[in-house]
Amino acid sequence: MTYSYSTLAEQYRNSLLNDIIPFWQTHSIDWECGGYFTCLDRAGKVYDTDKFVWLQNRQVWMFSSFYNQIEPRSDWLQIAAHGADFLAQHGRDAEGNWYFALDRAGNPLVQPYNIFSDCFAAMAFSKYALASGSEQAKQIALQAYGNVLRRKDNPKGKYTKAYPGTRSLKSLAVPMILANLSLEMDWLLPAETLEQVLSDTVQEVMGDFLDGDRGLMYEAITPAGAHLDCFDGRLINPGHGIEAMWFMMEIAQRSQDMKTINQAVEVVLNILEFAWDAEYGGLFYFMDADGHPPQQLEWDQKLWWVHLETLVALAMGDRLTGRAECWQWYQKMHDYAWSHFADPEYGEWFGYLNRRGEVLLNLKGSKWKGCFHVPRAMYLCWQQFEAMQ
Amino acid sequence: MTYSYSTLAEQYRNSLLNDIIPFWQTHSIDWECGGYFTCLDRAGKVYDTDKFVWLQNRQVWMFSSFYNQIEPRSDWLQIAAHGADFLAQHGRDAEGNWYFALDRAGNPLVQPYNIFSDCFAAMAFSKYALASGSEQAKQIALQAYGNVLRRKDNPKGKYTKAYPGTRSLKSLAVPMILANLSLEMDWLLPAETLEQVLSDTVQEVMGDFLDGDRGLMYEAITPAGAHLDCFDGRLINPGHGIEAMWFMMEIAQRSQDMKTINQAVEVVLNILEFAWDAEYGGLFYFMDADGHPPQQLEWDQKLWWVHLETLVALAMGDRLTGRAECWQWYQKMHDYAWSHFADPEYGEWFGYLNRRGEVLLNLKGSKWKGCFHVPRAMYLCWQQFEAMQ
Repeated sequence: MTYSYSTLAEQYRNSLLNDIIPFWQTHSIDWECGGYFTCLDRAGKVYDTDKFVWLQNRQVWMFSSFYNQIEPRSDWLQIAAHGADFLAQHGRDAEGNWYFALDRAGNPLVQPYNIFSDCFAAMAFSKYALASGSEQAKQIALQAYGNVLRRKDNPKGKYTKAYPGTRSLKSLAVPMILANLSLEMDWLLPAETLEQVLSDTVQEVMGDFLDGDRGLMYEAITPAGAHLDCFDGRLINPGHGIEAMWFMMEIAQRSQDMKTINQAVEVVLNILEFAWDAEYGGLFYFMDADGHPPQQLEWDQKLWWVHLETLVALAMGDRLTGRAECWQWYQKMHDYAWSHFADPEYGEWFGYLNRRGEVLLNLKGSKWKGCFHVPRAMYLCWQQFEAMQ
Repeated sequence: MTYSYSTLAEQYRNSLLNDIIPFWQTHSIDWECGGYFTCLDRAGKVYDTDKFVWLQNRQVWMFSSFYNQIEPRSDWLQIAAHGADFLAQHGRDAEGNWYFALDRAGNPLVQPYNIFSDCFAAMAFSKYALASGSEQAKQIALQAYGNVLRRKDNPKGKYTKAYPGTRSLKSLAVPMILANLSLEMDWLLPAETLEQVLSDTVQEVMGDFLDGDRGLMYEAITPAGAHLDCFDGRLINPGHGIEAMWFMMEIAQRSQDMKTINQAVEVVLNILEFAWDAEYGGLFYFMDADGHPPQQLEWDQKLWWVHLETLVALAMGDRLTGRAECWQWYQKMHDYAWSHFADPEYGEWFGYLNRRGEVLLNLKGSKWKGCFHVPRAMYLCWQQFEAMQ
């Protein structure tokens, strides 16, 4: 099947506005206790009521962003406020660190054991502050951002199980999310701070985590940038690496830095060659760089976000470089993703398929899948194709 | 295919002595740095050199047990000593708590973040002390056992991420392993202590974790024994529940407690009805008691240990009760397990299959699979069938 930019722009816009947003709007709001349900079965019915702070914040961010960027609809702002109010009241411990999970009523279940809850809180409250004009939201966003900067070199703090000194590894997730997060907060941060953080994180991702010889992004390297021959040191997470590359493209396009853009596109294409499942199609979830058995039992599964982030990266790569491989890979990935993950019968996308592409978990939301990757990718792909048409 | 007890006894004996033990004896010993390699590919080649303390201790336990129970072969004792010396030197922190992982040379990699390393150390050094007569080994075993008793009500200590008080859950793993461990240390513990611990743990497993109405073992319940409608509270781990049931049978047979034995057999049969994959055969790895999507992405995979523990439970149940369902299920499980997990070409058993029973990880050992479930089950099945023939 061949595609045109204009039909693709329309497909993503239509899907976002008439399927994805209504799905979450209809099924996820906890009008009784505040916040959102994210554990939704295939049809949208709630099967668990715990509230995971990553996903709570991501939904605040998503509806705020749509209010800011698509249309100032009062129902979208109301949904964002519904989550922001719940989180402002229940999301943080006495020191202002963000919990990982709450129960339905907002009582803390899981301690602030890493910084990603704070990252998503900073993103959420930044965009919510922009949408609502709330000064309190602005302060919450800046405080969460401060937590991230303060804790980024020891992101698990006292919960870290690694014995100090034997094997130091740093994680791609930290500079990658910091890059994306800082861009989301551009209107709140002093220009100098913003430019410094962006420049440092791009340097760290493209200079340290990218293996120049193989053209692959590694998940964990030594502080000096070296590879270690151990499970963590050999780990490749293709979707993560590809997502990091469109973060890099977004930053680089601000200064027309074509060198970084071209390099990021090259890495996307390398990862795709490495991680495409030639037998059943789709991208593997985890791989060992040297071909050894990975530790992750779910390594061969096909996950929604991996494929959505790839669609974004390829559409963006096409727009920014016009490289023919971007468009070729885009079409291949589009065919796979839309035919396997989308669920025209009940709406939204399945999250978890087995290697063969069959549905592994009959759900639309869970502890990890919420109102985030699907709508964000729909919006971003719509924007890329609209700009190109 | 029909089986006889005598051919089964011979099959297990032969497989243990001529396949499984030689596989580990040939491939796993790190003669250079001490301890054992457990990350072995299909053919036994080492693909990672980290040393996971559970598996290091389990191999010491296994070779010591074979020395004690099969034949006092000096090469088996030498292999046990090789691991015990390495662990005595490198396995513990300054407070005597057992690390989770070491690097090849024995430097600590992962802190003592739960009590299972201590459990397996107590088992290992108990049986090694019995084999070697070493007084030091005896002291190490008793110290590790003391750690377990001291930490059992807060097994993760300062590493726990659960917020105190919101949702208290206790884990089946703790009384279950304490029951098995105490029996392994029967010759070292004061009789009164032993009987008290065994009686308490049997009471806790069969009284609290067993759901009488459904006949299923739950992985996590409230301290008062109630079920909670949350991911952890709905979790069923069929292999774990079945393994716990043969631990119960072993304890109950010491006092000819037929009530507990019959109850344990009944639970095994219930779990099998619940967890057997009618479409592709084999037992699921994780299930939600209420049929919701589980959190574990690997839920539908078929794992070696689940099926081996089931073979043990059914053979033991057959020996102790003679119930026809034990023998019927035994044969069905035997057909599945031996035809899917055993690898006659390279020896030993595969560990991880996908739902369809195809090899998911092309390995014989890993971070979690070592010289333990396969040889222990071979030995125990051999013993059951030999006693019945």
